[in-house]
Amino acid sequence: MSFVERMNISIILAHLHPGSFNHVIAETVTGTLSQNGHEVCFHDLYAEGFDPVLPHDEIPRDAVLPDDISWYCAEIAAADGLVFVHPDWWGMPPAILKGFIDRVFRPGTSYWFLEGDTGEGIPVCLLQAKSALVINTSNTPSHREREVFGDPLERLGKDCICGFCGIPVCQRRMFGVIVTSSGEQRM
Amino acid sequence: MSFVERMNISIILAHLHPGSFNHVIAETVTGTLSQNGHEVCFHDLYAEGFDPVLPHDEIPRDAVLPDDISWYCAEIAAADGLVFVHPDWWGMPPAILKGFIDRVFRPGTSYWFLEGDTGEGIPVCLLQAKSALVINTSNTPSHREREVFGDPLERLGKDCICGFCGIPVCQRRMFGVIVTSSGEQRM
Repeated sequence: MSFVERMNISIILAHLHPGSFNHVIAETVTGTLSQNGHEVCFHDLYAEGFDPVLPHDEIPRDAVLPDDISWYCAEIAAADGLVFVHPDWWGMPPAILKGFIDRVFRPGTSYWFLEGDTGEGIPVCLLQAKSALVINTSNTPSHREREVFGDPLERLGKDCICGFCGIPVCQRRMFGVIVTSSGEQRM
Repeated sequence: MSFVERMNISIILAHLHPGSFNHVIAETVTGTLSQNGHEVCFHDLYAEGFDPVLPHDEIPRDAVLPDDISWYCAEIAAADGLVFVHPDWWGMPPAILKGFIDRVFRPGTSYWFLEGDTGEGIPVCLLQAKSALVINTSNTPSHREREVFGDPLERLGKDCICGFCGIPVCQRRMFGVIVTSSGEQRM
């Protein structure tokens, strides 16, 4: 029997089809972490009808947020670990997840700037999370993704999001090519 | 007097505040191109209430699209040039523009794959556009953007979107640091 620290882990899934390989991945991660004794919050952003459009009145630090955004913010701020599961669309996450980052990873809850820094400098991390896992699916062969497109999701996850917010460890796993894969390969 | 070919140019703006520097940039580009005799279609995605969430039933090539998506697709397919104006949020466009790419740059209207290629290969361009211009604003100093974050918008615009769709020329201009700039600097 192994003893592991019980952690709060949020899993964020962004895929438009309930029968997708992304769903299977997210459900497998959720089930495995739960079985290992962790407290898992699973969010299927499409199923939850998440609205990804950041409105102007949510910009001020002391903005009165819609209840759902406040709940997401509080959960993400308190999570010990984060897992993102999404396909590679145009070298980026689907818009619904891009907007989750835009609205939920807010200044004041995810990061802040030191006094005198009006927002152009180096942020102070406010998240508890010590690690993140990004799982992507792709229809582009990995060598073409790296050589032709520069695999932007690598730096977006590790540097632009986790690095910016001060999450020290970000692991990434890419599965592909999905469109030509067999059922056996996806097992 | 100079003679230039009259072109159809679509300008896509993604910023949440009507008084923003992004709006001023987009209006300046629109006005200049119109004065030079071009046919300009200007879209302020926030003002138009664009819904960036790609639904599953728009995936098939022969999907029956909502009227607004059909119009955007027809316009983008016929444009001689494209201009995107948006801030750098997390190394990516705001979700509303990310979703515009997801929904409007469709297989069948923007690109397609050769027979026998199920989607993992090299696309055939269906757009008319011969060039694109991406104008970004940022609150990150340019050296920090390149060195710490890898400036993902550079490859996203040039390789992942324009390159993928076969638009041969993509120019990019980044303005910053906006948050500490003076009114005079933004003139």
